[in-house]
Amino acid sequence: MIAGILTIGDEILIGQTIDTNSATIGKELNKIGIKIKKILSVADEKNEIIKGFSALEDSCDVILVTGGLGPTKDDITKHAFAEYFDDELVFNEEHFEIARQKFESRGFKVREAHRVQFQLPSKAKLYENDMGSAPGMLFRKNGTKFFSMPGVPHEMKHLLTDRLMPILQAENDVEVYHRTLLTVGVGETALAEKIEPITNRLPSRASVAFLPSLGAVKIRFSISGTDISNEKEEVNSLFDEMKEILSDHVYGEGDTTLSSHVGDLLKAKGLKLSVAESCTGGLLGNTLVKTPGSSAYFEGGVLSYSYEQKVKLLGVKQSTLDSVGAVSEQTVKEMQKGVINVTHSDVSISISGIAGPGGGTPEKPVGTIWMACGNSDKCITRKILAGKNREKNMEYGVVQALNLLRQFINEVY
Amino acid sequence: MIAGILTIGDEILIGQTIDTNSATIGKELNKIGIKIKKILSVADEKNEIIKGFSALEDSCDVILVTGGLGPTKDDITKHAFAEYFDDELVFNEEHFEIARQKFESRGFKVREAHRVQFQLPSKAKLYENDMGSAPGMLFRKNGTKFFSMPGVPHEMKHLLTDRLMPILQAENDVEVYHRTLLTVGVGETALAEKIEPITNRLPSRASVAFLPSLGAVKIRFSISGTDISNEKEEVNSLFDEMKEILSDHVYGEGDTTLSSHVGDLLKAKGLKLSVAESCTGGLLGNTLVKTPGSSAYFEGGVLSYSYEQKVKLLGVKQSTLDSVGAVSEQTVKEMQKGVINVTHSDVSISISGIAGPGGGTPEKPVGTIWMACGNSDKCITRKILAGKNREKNMEYGVVQALNLLRQFINEVY
Repeated sequence: MIAGILTIGDEILIGQTIDTNSATIGKELNKIGIKIKKILSVADEKNEIIKGFSALEDSCDVILVTGGLGPTKDDITKHAFAEYFDDELVFNEEHFEIARQKFESRGFKVREAHRVQFQLPSKAKLYENDMGSAPGMLFRKNGTKFFSMPGVPHEMKHLLTDRLMPILQAENDVEVYHRTLLTVGVGETALAEKIEPITNRLPSRASVAFLPSLGAVKIRFSISGTDISNEKEEVNSLFDEMKEILSDHVYGEGDTTLSSHVGDLLKAKGLKLSVAESCTGGLLGNTLVKTPGSSAYFEGGVLSYSYEQKVKLLGVKQSTLDSVGAVSEQTVKEMQKGVINVTHSDVSISISGIAGPGGGTPEKPVGTIWMACGNSDKCITRKILAGKNREKNMEYGVVQALNLLRQFINEVY
Repeated sequence: MIAGILTIGDEILIGQTIDTNSATIGKELNKIGIKIKKILSVADEKNEIIKGFSALEDSCDVILVTGGLGPTKDDITKHAFAEYFDDELVFNEEHFEIARQKFESRGFKVREAHRVQFQLPSKAKLYENDMGSAPGMLFRKNGTKFFSMPGVPHEMKHLLTDRLMPILQAENDVEVYHRTLLTVGVGETALAEKIEPITNRLPSRASVAFLPSLGAVKIRFSISGTDISNEKEEVNSLFDEMKEILSDHVYGEGDTTLSSHVGDLLKAKGLKLSVAESCTGGLLGNTLVKTPGSSAYFEGGVLSYSYEQKVKLLGVKQSTLDSVGAVSEQTVKEMQKGVINVTHSDVSISISGIAGPGGGTPEKPVGTIWMACGNSDKCITRKILAGKNREKNMEYGVVQALNLLRQFINEVY
């Protein structure tokens, strides 16, 4: 099964909105072995939309359409569908009623503009949208499916995963099997070399993909086809071998984030965490609290951005700052102990670096980041050299700091 | 002049990479009045790339191509160009030499793979890439321009703005004039109503655009055409009228962020800032330090995520927490004063809320956020009700908190 994506909306063409929907669709379809052949973005113009349908229909079995379903006059996707399928718009009482009840239960009044939204092509099969008012619409033509979804990302994702995916899975006769290993702290090239003896032995229908992000790499083994159960076993045993070889760098399998993984570790060991941040100014703490329920293990901490606050809030010695500077092993050690002293948490992480663009020296260039992790007794430190981009340096520092915490917990507790 | 974008790369189709380049291009071209007609994404396959060229050439005067210029075997954009323009690849000594020198000055050794990268179509005009090794390539065919850039965002942006834009500006005979007002704290619909008497009087060739983001709206007046100097004056005078009407909600003009604007205010008044964060866990601090040079006014602060740390680190009264809870006016007031006491900064912001998904009650639903801003003497507070999405609630809270700071400084200093 080959898929195409058509995203509709002037806001994408003028660069006001970044199209994240296509990546969401690409990821989901990829999981079940459906290949995206092309992605096309066009304006809110009926003729452009119709040309888009026809351009994609030539080469795709399923066409996913996002955008242009709202109640405003710009939103003309349904008119384009009606014309393309030689159809007419009729008022759909049933789906209007569902939306009306949802609206009124939240205390809103239904307005005329909302009724207009339920003038829909008669040939479309409608799918209820639990996250908004515009339903999903499925059209079929000579074996090709067209599925229309709103452009709002969380509504799109809901209709995609809860409505369309089950249909595609049922109609797609290819079985797909994935296993994903989550690693941190080693680059893609080094990983690929380490596991080459394993990936060389993957069965011919299986494949390996390296999915890198800042400081972390996911390694995915996939196999797709019919009757894959024997190869599945082979893939599983090779996967376990890989896991063994990379053990120190592996933090999990599947889809967790590193910060929620360290959260699980802290919870399992009954440990409370605090942070002492300099160059990241709060990004480490914020990354930790993005995980719902983080209050079970995250206490808080201190943003000691200036020299003065390192002394005042954390008790870093002025003589340390004067002799070796804020970006040094000794300073992050004192920050780490300092934040334990003031919060009484069990473990803590500290981080101090030169995010750039200014502040670099030949000895400590932009991108130099020191970090420490420990408890009231022990402390381990690490120095990294990130890049030149201020925001990326902060993000990379946070990944490395979370990895240091992971290693500290695994070693000590 | 009509433009099209062709993005090349399997990583986009499988959803591993979100295509941010198209939005960057859309924004830049929009500024000089060039309309993007469509955006097409295809795989790293020569035939698909060539089909893409031909699909866009039909309707576009300039085609911007991103991706597929690296040294690996996947990168076949240049082969597609050579075939499409009936050209051949020749080794370009001059541009190889430029890249070699850059490489060696950074201590890297040039490898065979790098030489291959300079086997380039002979008909292309090459543009040096200061951010990487692959040069930009410009092809011309029957009045249509094709410009090829690497997919790495900062390299793409550099070649776009520093190399291609001057060419497009010189060849585009339309004059374009924009003025953008930056507002915060009022929604798009309310703003549109307030300024309707003004926008109704815009000259016929001028237009207004509302560009909303979380908690903030940019309002842009544009005019494009030939001989626009008279209308430019009219637009300027209407713009100034709008600025007057919206004064309280305006934080600037052009392209600044709210956090760098408050940074400028703090610097101008010689004030040092600290923060006390609960629900945002560091996002407020991190948003402030994203601006380079923020150490001139940002001291740091306290992440008091748990009840205990609000008491320990900030001196919030246990009785306050027991009687009105952490998400309350009294608590954010005590946090605001507490962080002034421990940091001795001039002004401070505090924030405490229910980010969700858990923790909501009928009286304090998910999305309830209290914030305070003040100095050692005065304090103003605000309560907002954000939405249901944890991360969006944090981001929205930060924008509102920065706006409260802006208002406090303007009122008090």
